[in-house]
Amino acid sequence: MKFYGFWRSIASFRVRTALAYKGIKPDEVIDIDLLQGKQRDEAYRKVNPQMLIPALFEDDKSPMLFQSMAIMEYLEETRPQPPLLPKDAFGRARVRGLSQIVVSDAHPMSVPRVRGYLTKDLGLSEERMLTWVRHWQSEALSALETHLSRDKTTGKYCHGDAVTIADICLAGQVVGSGFFKTDMKPYPTVMRIFDACMVLDAFAKSHPLKQPGAPEKV
Amino acid sequence: MKFYGFWRSIASFRVRTALAYKGIKPDEVIDIDLLQGKQRDEAYRKVNPQMLIPALFEDDKSPMLFQSMAIMEYLEETRPQPPLLPKDAFGRARVRGLSQIVVSDAHPMSVPRVRGYLTKDLGLSEERMLTWVRHWQSEALSALETHLSRDKTTGKYCHGDAVTIADICLAGQVVGSGFFKTDMKPYPTVMRIFDACMVLDAFAKSHPLKQPGAPEKV
Repeated sequence: MKFYGFWRSIASFRVRTALAYKGIKPDEVIDIDLLQGKQRDEAYRKVNPQMLIPALFEDDKSPMLFQSMAIMEYLEETRPQPPLLPKDAFGRARVRGLSQIVVSDAHPMSVPRVRGYLTKDLGLSEERMLTWVRHWQSEALSALETHLSRDKTTGKYCHGDAVTIADICLAGQVVGSGFFKTDMKPYPTVMRIFDACMVLDAFAKSHPLKQPGAPEKV
Repeated sequence: MKFYGFWRSIASFRVRTALAYKGIKPDEVIDIDLLQGKQRDEAYRKVNPQMLIPALFEDDKSPMLFQSMAIMEYLEETRPQPPLLPKDAFGRARVRGLSQIVVSDAHPMSVPRVRGYLTKDLGLSEERMLTWVRHWQSEALSALETHLSRDKTTGKYCHGDAVTIADICLAGQVVGSGFFKTDMKPYPTVMRIFDACMVLDAFAKSHPLKQPGAPEKV
Protein backbone atom coordinates (compact mmCIF):
# COMPACT_ATOMS: atom_id res chain seq x y z
CA MET A 1 0.00 0.00 0.00
CA LYS A 2 1.21 3.48 -0.96
CA PHE A 3 -0.06 6.63 0.77
CA TYR A 4 0.37 10.16 -0.56
CA GLY A 5 -0.14 12.80 2.12
CA PHE A 6 1.34 15.77 3.93
CA TRP A 7 1.67 16.70 7.59
CA ARG A 8 -0.35 19.93 7.23
CA SER A 9 -3.25 18.35 5.31
CA ILE A 10 -6.26 17.67 7.52
CA ALA A 11 -7.71 15.24 4.97
CA SER A 12 -4.42 13.29 5.15
CA PHE A 13 -4.70 13.30 8.95
CA ARG A 14 -8.14 11.68 8.63
CA VAL A 15 -6.92 8.84 6.44
CA ARG A 16 -3.71 8.38 8.46
CA THR A 17 -5.80 8.01 11.62
CA ALA A 18 -8.20 5.53 10.00
CA LEU A 19 -5.25 3.45 8.78
CA ALA A 20 -3.63 3.52 12.23
CA TYR A 21 -6.91 2.69 13.99
CA LYS A 22 -7.32 -0.37 11.80
CA GLY A 23 -3.70 -1.36 12.29
CA ILE A 24 -2.77 -0.89 8.62
CA LYS A 25 0.77 0.25 7.92
CA PRO A 26 1.35 1.50 4.33
CA ASP A 27 4.51 0.12 2.71
CA GLU A 28 5.32 3.56 1.37
CA VAL A 29 4.38 7.04 2.61
CA ILE A 30 5.08 9.83 0.15
CA ASP A 31 5.02 13.47 1.19
CA ILE A 32 3.55 16.01 -1.23
CA ASP A 33 4.62 19.37 0.20
CA LEU A 34 1.53 21.58 -0.16
CA LEU A 35 3.37 24.60 1.23
CA GLN A 36 5.83 24.35 -1.69
CA GLY A 37 3.01 23.65 -4.18
CA LYS A 38 4.37 20.16 -4.97
CA GLN A 39 0.83 18.92 -5.63
CA ARG A 40 0.97 20.90 -8.90
CA ASP A 41 4.20 19.23 -10.09
CA GLU A 42 3.93 17.10 -13.23
CA ALA A 43 4.96 14.02 -11.24
CA TYR A 44 2.02 14.27 -8.85
CA ARG A 45 -0.41 15.40 -11.54
CA LYS A 46 0.13 11.99 -13.12
CA VAL A 47 -0.87 10.36 -9.84
CA ASN A 48 -3.90 12.56 -9.14
CA PRO A 49 -4.98 14.96 -11.88
CA GLN A 50 -7.06 16.88 -9.34
CA MET A 51 -3.74 17.69 -7.59
CA LEU A 52 -5.24 16.97 -4.19
CA ILE A 53 -4.08 14.77 -1.34
CA PRO A 54 -4.55 12.27 0.16
CA ALA A 55 -4.38 9.50 -2.43
CA LEU A 56 -4.03 5.81 -1.59
CA PHE A 57 -3.05 2.79 -3.70
CA GLU A 58 -3.40 -0.84 -2.63
CA ASP A 59 -0.59 -1.82 -5.04
CA ASP A 60 0.99 -0.79 -8.35
CA LYS A 61 -1.90 -2.18 -10.40
CA SER A 62 -4.83 -0.93 -8.32
CA PRO A 63 -6.82 2.23 -9.08
CA MET A 64 -6.22 5.43 -7.14
CA LEU A 65 -8.38 5.89 -4.07
CA PHE A 66 -9.17 9.58 -3.60
CA GLN A 67 -11.23 11.86 -1.33
CA SER A 68 -10.79 11.15 2.37
CA MET A 69 -14.41 10.11 3.06
CA ALA A 70 -14.38 7.67 0.12
CA ILE A 71 -11.03 6.25 1.30
CA MET A 72 -12.28 5.75 4.86
CA GLU A 73 -15.43 4.01 3.61
CA TYR A 74 -13.19 1.79 1.45
CA LEU A 75 -11.01 0.88 4.43
CA GLU A 76 -14.14 0.09 6.44
CA GLU A 77 -15.45 -2.21 3.70
CA THR A 78 -12.17 -4.03 3.08
CA ARG A 79 -10.90 -4.16 6.70
CA PRO A 80 -14.05 -4.15 8.83
CA GLN A 81 -12.22 -4.78 12.14
CA PRO A 82 -12.04 -2.73 14.29
CA PRO A 83 -15.14 -0.99 12.90
CA LEU A 84 -15.31 2.75 12.24
CA LEU A 85 -19.07 2.76 11.60
CA PRO A 86 -21.88 1.54 13.87
CA LYS A 87 -23.92 -1.48 12.81
CA ASP A 88 -27.40 0.09 12.58
CA ALA A 89 -28.51 2.20 9.61
CA PHE A 90 -29.64 5.20 11.70
CA GLY A 91 -26.32 5.19 13.55
CA ARG A 92 -24.33 4.97 10.33
CA ALA A 93 -26.38 7.83 8.86
CA ARG A 94 -25.72 9.98 11.93
CA VAL A 95 -21.98 9.26 11.84
CA ARG A 96 -21.81 10.06 8.12
CA GLY A 97 -23.93 13.20 8.59
CA LEU A 98 -21.70 14.51 11.38
CA SER A 99 -18.66 13.73 9.23
CA GLN A 100 -20.06 15.62 6.25
CA ILE A 101 -20.63 18.73 8.40
CA VAL A 102 -16.84 18.83 8.71
CA VAL A 103 -15.84 17.47 5.31
CA SER A 104 -18.38 19.36 3.17
CA ASP A 105 -19.48 22.42 5.15
CA ALA A 106 -16.34 23.58 6.95
CA HIS A 107 -13.10 22.16 5.62
CA PRO A 108 -13.48 23.21 1.95
CA MET A 109 -13.66 26.86 3.05
CA SER A 110 -10.14 26.86 4.50
CA VAL A 111 -8.06 24.70 2.15
CA PRO A 112 -4.93 26.31 0.59
CA ARG A 113 -6.51 26.91 -2.84
CA VAL A 114 -9.42 28.82 -1.29
CA ARG A 115 -7.21 30.87 1.04
CA GLY A 116 -5.08 31.68 -2.03
CA TYR A 117 -8.11 32.84 -4.02
CA LEU A 118 -9.21 35.08 -1.15
CA THR A 119 -5.85 36.80 -0.70
CA LYS A 120 -4.54 36.79 -4.28
CA ASP A 121 -7.60 36.96 -6.56
CA LEU A 122 -9.85 38.93 -4.23
CA GLY A 123 -7.01 40.88 -2.59
CA LEU A 124 -8.21 40.29 0.98
CA SER A 125 -5.84 41.11 3.82
CA GLU A 126 -4.46 38.19 5.85
CA GLU A 127 -6.71 39.29 8.72
CA ARG A 128 -9.92 39.29 6.66
CA MET A 129 -8.99 35.91 5.17
CA LEU A 130 -8.54 34.55 8.70
CA THR A 131 -11.90 36.01 9.73
CA TRP A 132 -13.45 34.07 6.82
CA VAL A 133 -11.77 30.82 7.84
CA ARG A 134 -12.75 31.21 11.49
CA HIS A 135 -16.33 32.11 10.55
CA TRP A 136 -16.90 28.85 8.65
CA GLN A 137 -15.03 26.79 11.23
CA SER A 138 -17.22 28.27 13.99
CA GLU A 139 -20.39 27.54 12.01
CA ALA A 140 -19.44 23.87 11.65
CA LEU A 141 -18.21 23.56 15.24
CA SER A 142 -21.45 25.10 16.44
CA ALA A 143 -23.47 22.61 14.35
CA LEU A 144 -21.41 19.73 15.76
CA GLU A 145 -21.79 21.03 19.32
CA THR A 146 -25.59 21.27 18.95
CA HIS A 147 -25.87 17.77 17.50
CA LEU A 148 -23.52 16.21 20.05
CA SER A 149 -24.89 17.97 23.13
CA ARG A 150 -28.58 17.38 22.37
CA ASP A 151 -28.52 13.79 21.08
CA LYS A 152 -28.74 10.91 23.54
CA THR A 153 -26.73 8.77 21.13
CA THR A 154 -23.60 10.79 21.91
CA GLY A 155 -21.35 8.90 24.30
CA LYS A 156 -17.69 8.94 25.16
CA TYR A 157 -17.23 9.60 21.45
CA CYS A 158 -19.50 11.18 18.81
CA HIS A 159 -21.66 8.07 18.56
CA GLY A 160 -21.75 5.90 21.65
CA ASP A 161 -18.58 4.62 23.22
CA ALA A 162 -16.78 3.38 20.12
CA VAL A 163 -14.63 5.43 17.76
CA THR A 164 -16.17 6.17 14.36
CA ILE A 165 -15.35 8.14 11.23
CA ALA A 166 -17.17 11.08 12.85
CA ASP A 167 -14.54 11.22 15.62
CA ILE A 168 -11.78 11.22 13.02
CA CYS A 169 -13.47 14.12 11.23
CA LEU A 170 -14.08 15.95 14.51
CA ALA A 171 -10.42 15.54 15.52
CA GLY A 172 -9.32 16.92 12.15
CA GLN A 173 -11.66 19.87 12.56
CA VAL A 174 -10.32 20.71 16.01
CA VAL A 175 -6.68 20.42 14.92
CA GLY A 176 -7.42 22.51 11.81
CA SER A 177 -9.22 25.11 13.88
CA GLY A 178 -6.16 25.23 16.13
CA PHE A 179 -3.98 26.09 13.12
CA PHE A 180 -6.15 29.20 12.62
CA LYS A 181 -6.59 29.98 16.33
CA THR A 182 -10.38 29.71 16.25
CA ASP A 183 -11.90 30.18 19.71
CA MET A 184 -12.91 26.71 20.97
CA LYS A 185 -14.53 27.75 24.27
CA PRO A 186 -18.12 27.61 22.93
CA TYR A 187 -17.73 23.92 22.05
CA PRO A 188 -17.24 21.93 25.27
CA THR A 189 -18.74 18.67 23.97
CA VAL A 190 -16.59 18.81 20.84
CA MET A 191 -13.51 19.40 23.00
CA ARG A 192 -14.43 16.63 25.46
CA ILE A 193 -14.62 14.15 22.58
CA PHE A 194 -11.45 15.53 21.00
CA ASP A 195 -9.59 14.97 24.28
CA ALA A 196 -10.97 11.42 24.49
CA CYS A 197 -9.71 10.74 20.96
CA MET A 198 -6.27 12.23 21.36
CA VAL A 199 -5.28 9.88 24.20
CA LEU A 200 -5.72 6.99 21.76
CA ASP A 201 -2.52 5.89 20.05
CA ALA A 202 -4.04 5.91 16.53
CA PHE A 203 -4.99 9.58 16.86
CA ALA A 204 -1.96 10.75 18.84
CA LYS A 205 0.64 9.35 16.48
CA SER A 206 -1.29 10.55 13.41
CA HIS A 207 -1.42 14.18 14.59
CA PRO A 208 -0.17 16.58 11.89
CA LEU A 209 2.56 18.00 14.13
CA LYS A 210 3.91 14.50 14.83
CA GLN A 211 4.70 13.83 11.16
CA PRO A 212 8.16 14.05 9.54
CA GLY A 213 8.90 17.59 8.37
CA ALA A 214 6.27 19.21 10.60
CA PRO A 215 7.23 22.18 12.81
CA GLU A 216 6.80 21.97 16.60
CA LYS A 217 3.83 24.31 16.37
CA VAL A 218 2.03 26.44 13.78
CA MET B 1 -41.58 9.35 5.48
CA LYS B 2 -41.26 13.15 5.64
CA PHE B 3 -38.93 15.09 3.34
CA TYR B 4 -37.85 18.70 3.90
CA GLY B 5 -36.44 20.29 0.76
CA PHE B 6 -36.70 23.15 -1.69
CA TRP B 7 -36.79 23.37 -5.47
CA ARG B 8 -33.65 25.52 -5.70
CA SER B 9 -31.54 23.34 -3.38
CA ILE B 10 -29.15 21.09 -5.27
CA ALA B 11 -28.67 18.86 -2.20
CA SER B 12 -32.47 18.40 -2.12
CA PHE B 13 -32.37 17.50 -5.83
CA ARG B 14 -29.85 14.74 -5.02
CA VAL B 15 -32.01 13.16 -2.33
CA ARG B 16 -35.21 13.60 -4.37
CA THR B 17 -33.58 11.78 -7.28
CA ALA B 18 -32.29 8.95 -5.07
CA LEU B 19 -35.79 8.53 -3.58
CA ALA B 20 -37.39 8.51 -7.04
CA TYR B 21 -34.79 6.11 -8.45
CA LYS B 22 -35.53 3.65 -5.67
CA GLY B 23 -39.27 4.12 -6.08
CA ILE B 24 -39.77 5.66 -2.64
CA LYS B 25 -42.54 8.24 -2.35
CA PRO B 26 -42.41 10.32 0.87
CA ASP B 27 -45.78 10.69 2.61
CA GLU B 28 -45.11 14.38 3.16
CA VAL B 29 -42.91 16.83 1.26
CA ILE B 30 -42.34 20.12 3.06
CA ASP B 31 -40.87 23.14 1.29
CA ILE B 32 -38.42 25.32 3.19
CA ASP B 33 -38.11 28.44 1.05
CA LEU B 34 -34.40 29.27 1.09
CA LEU B 35 -34.95 32.41 -0.98
CA GLN B 36 -37.17 33.76 1.81
CA GLY B 37 -34.76 32.53 4.51
CA LYS B 38 -37.37 30.14 5.96
CA GLN B 39 -34.58 27.77 7.02
CA ARG B 40 -33.80 30.25 9.80
CA ASP B 41 -37.36 30.30 11.18
CA GLU B 42 -37.81 28.94 14.70
CA ALA B 43 -40.08 26.17 13.34
CA TYR B 44 -37.38 24.73 11.08
CA ARG B 45 -34.60 25.34 13.58
CA LYS B 46 -36.37 22.83 15.81
CA VAL B 47 -36.24 20.30 12.98
CA ASN B 48 -32.62 20.92 11.97
CA PRO B 49 -30.56 23.20 14.20
CA GLN B 50 -28.00 23.56 11.41
CA MET B 51 -30.79 25.25 9.39
CA LEU B 52 -29.85 23.30 6.28
CA ILE B 53 -31.91 21.20 3.91
CA PRO B 54 -32.53 18.47 2.97
CA ALA B 55 -33.68 16.60 6.07
CA LEU B 56 -35.51 13.28 6.01
CA PHE B 57 -37.52 11.41 8.65
CA GLU B 58 -38.69 7.81 8.39
CA ASP B 59 -41.54 8.57 10.80
CA ASP B 60 -42.44 10.79 13.76
CA LYS B 61 -40.27 8.82 16.16
CA SER B 62 -37.16 8.34 14.01
CA PRO B 63 -34.06 10.52 14.20
CA MET B 64 -33.41 13.23 11.60
CA LEU B 65 -31.39 12.13 8.60
CA PHE B 66 -29.21 15.00 7.40
CA GLN B 67 -26.51 15.76 4.81
CA SER B 68 -27.35 14.52 1.31
CA MET B 69 -24.49 12.01 1.03
CA ALA B 70 -25.36 10.45 4.38
CA ILE B 71 -29.04 10.27 3.41
CA MET B 72 -28.26 8.59 0.06
CA GLU B 73 -26.00 6.03 1.80
CA TYR B 74 -28.84 5.40 4.27
CA LEU B 75 -31.35 4.83 1.46
CA GLU B 76 -28.87 2.47 -0.21
CA GLU B 77 -28.47 0.46 3.01
CA THR B 78 -32.18 0.27 3.85
CA ARG B 79 -33.55 -0.08 0.28
CA PRO B 80 -30.75 -1.77 -1.67
CA GLN B 81 -32.82 -2.31 -4.85
CA PRO B 82 -32.27 -0.86 -7.38
CA PRO B 83 -28.67 -0.24 -6.25
CA LEU B 84 -27.00 3.17 -6.37
CA LEU B 85 -23.53 1.81 -5.59
CA PRO B 86 -21.55 -0.87 -7.43
CA LYS B 87 -20.83 -4.17 -5.69
CA ASP B 88 -17.00 -4.09 -5.62
CA ALA B 89 -15.02 -2.04 -3.11
CA PHE B 90 -12.88 -0.24 -5.73
CA GLY B 91 -15.99 0.70 -7.69
CA ARG B 92 -17.76 1.95 -4.58
CA ALA B 93 -14.70 4.00 -3.64
CA ARG B 94 -14.57 5.55 -7.13
CA VAL B 95 -18.28 6.43 -7.05
CA ARG B 96 -17.95 7.97 -3.60
CA GLY B 97 -14.77 9.82 -4.61
CA LEU B 98 -16.43 11.32 -7.71
CA SER B 99 -19.43 12.27 -5.58
CA GLN B 100 -17.26 14.03 -3.00
CA ILE B 101 -15.60 16.13 -5.72
CA VAL B 102 -19.03 17.66 -6.21
CA VAL B 103 -20.32 17.55 -2.65
CA SER B 104 -17.14 18.69 -0.85
CA ASP B 105 -15.03 20.57 -3.39
CA ALA B 106 -17.53 22.47 -5.51
CA HIS B 107 -21.00 22.76 -4.05
CA PRO B 108 -20.08 24.32 -0.66
CA MET B 109 -18.51 27.29 -2.49
CA SER B 110 -21.80 28.38 -4.07
CA VAL B 111 -24.47 27.77 -1.41
CA PRO B 112 -26.63 30.76 -0.36
CA ARG B 113 -24.80 31.39 2.94
CA VAL B 114 -21.43 31.61 1.15
CA ARG B 115 -22.74 33.85 -1.64
CA GLY B 116 -24.23 36.05 1.08
CA TYR B 117 -20.91 36.30 2.92
CA LEU B 118 -19.13 37.26 -0.30
CA THR B 119 -21.55 40.03 -1.25
CA LYS B 120 -22.60 41.29 2.20
CA ASP B 121 -19.64 40.69 4.52
CA LEU B 122 -16.88 41.09 1.94
CA GLY B 123 -18.78 43.62 -0.19
CA LEU B 124 -18.08 41.87 -3.50
CA SER B 125 -20.04 42.96 -6.55
CA GLU B 126 -22.54 40.47 -7.97
CA GLU B 127 -20.18 39.98 -10.91
CA ARG B 128 -17.15 39.11 -8.76
CA MET B 129 -19.29 36.78 -6.65
CA LEU B 130 -20.40 35.00 -9.83
CA THR B 131 -16.77 34.76 -10.99
CA TRP B 132 -15.98 33.02 -7.69
CA VAL B 133 -18.88 30.57 -8.08
CA ARG B 134 -17.98 29.76 -11.68
CA HIS B 135 -14.30 29.33 -10.80
CA TRP B 136 -14.99 26.59 -8.24
CA GLN B 137 -17.64 24.96 -10.41
CA SER B 138 -15.17 24.84 -13.31
CA GLU B 139 -12.47 23.34 -11.09
CA ALA B 140 -14.78 20.52 -10.03
CA LEU B 141 -16.18 19.98 -13.50
CA SER B 142 -12.65 19.82 -14.87
CA ALA B 143 -11.71 17.23 -12.21
CA LEU B 144 -14.81 15.18 -13.08
CA GLU B 145 -14.09 15.45 -16.81
CA THR B 146 -10.50 14.23 -16.33
CA HIS B 147 -11.57 11.29 -14.17
CA LEU B 148 -14.46 10.31 -16.44
CA SER B 149 -12.64 10.69 -19.76
CA ARG B 150 -9.46 8.84 -18.74
CA ASP B 151 -10.90 5.93 -16.73
CA LYS B 152 -11.96 2.76 -18.53
CA THR B 153 -14.53 2.15 -15.80
CA THR B 154 -16.62 5.05 -17.12
CA GLY B 155 -19.53 3.75 -19.19
CA LYS B 156 -22.91 5.06 -20.20
CA TYR B 157 -22.91 6.60 -16.73
CA CYS B 158 -20.09 7.67 -14.37
CA HIS B 159 -19.32 4.08 -13.39
CA GLY B 160 -20.24 1.46 -15.96
CA ASP B 161 -23.74 1.26 -17.36
CA ALA B 162 -25.74 1.51 -14.15
CA VAL B 163 -26.79 4.69 -12.36
CA THR B 164 -24.94 5.44 -9.12
CA ILE B 165 -24.78 8.18 -6.51
CA ALA B 166 -22.00 9.74 -8.63
CA ASP B 167 -24.48 10.34 -11.47
CA ILE B 168 -26.89 11.98 -9.05
CA CYS B 169 -24.11 14.27 -7.83
CA LEU B 170 -22.97 14.98 -11.41
CA ALA B 171 -26.52 15.86 -12.46
CA GLY B 172 -26.84 18.23 -9.51
CA GLN B 173 -23.53 19.85 -10.41
CA VAL B 174 -24.58 20.42 -14.02
CA VAL B 175 -27.98 21.84 -13.06
CA GLY B 176 -26.35 24.05 -10.42
CA SER B 177 -23.76 25.24 -12.91
CA GLY B 178 -26.62 26.08 -15.27
CA PHE B 179 -28.13 28.34 -12.59
CA PHE B 180 -24.88 30.36 -12.66
CA LYS B 181 -24.33 30.11 -16.43
CA THR B 182 -20.97 28.38 -16.13
CA ASP B 183 -19.54 27.48 -19.54
CA MET B 184 -20.03 23.71 -20.00
CA LYS B 185 -18.29 23.31 -23.37
CA PRO B 186 -14.99 22.04 -21.88
CA TYR B 187 -16.77 19.07 -20.24
CA PRO B 188 -18.16 16.83 -23.02
CA THR B 189 -18.03 13.59 -21.01
CA VAL B 190 -19.80 15.22 -18.07
CA MET B 191 -22.49 16.52 -20.45
CA ARG B 192 -22.85 13.18 -22.23
CA ILE B 193 -23.53 11.47 -18.89
CA PHE B 194 -25.82 14.30 -17.77
CA ASP B 195 -27.90 13.86 -20.94
CA ALA B 196 -28.05 10.09 -20.36
CA CYS B 197 -29.31 10.72 -16.81
CA MET B 198 -31.90 13.33 -17.67
CA VAL B 199 -33.86 11.05 -19.99
CA LEU B 200 -34.51 8.80 -16.99
CA ASP B 201 -37.79 9.44 -15.24
CA ALA B 202 -36.24 9.59 -11.73
CA PHE B 203 -33.92 12.42 -12.78
CA ALA B 204 -36.32 14.26 -15.09
CA LYS B 205 -39.16 14.53 -12.59
CA SER B 206 -36.78 15.47 -9.76
CA HIS B 207 -35.27 18.42 -11.67
CA PRO B 208 -35.35 21.62 -9.58
CA LEU B 209 -37.38 23.51 -12.19
CA LYS B 210 -40.04 20.78 -12.20
CA GLN B 211 -40.87 21.26 -8.52
CA PRO B 212 -43.90 23.17 -7.13
CA GLY B 213 -43.08 26.85 -6.76
CA ALA B 214 -40.14 26.82 -9.15
CA PRO B 215 -39.95 29.38 -11.95
CA GLU B 216 -39.80 28.24 -15.59
CA LYS B 217 -36.14 29.18 -15.75
CA VAL B 218 -33.55 30.92 -13.57
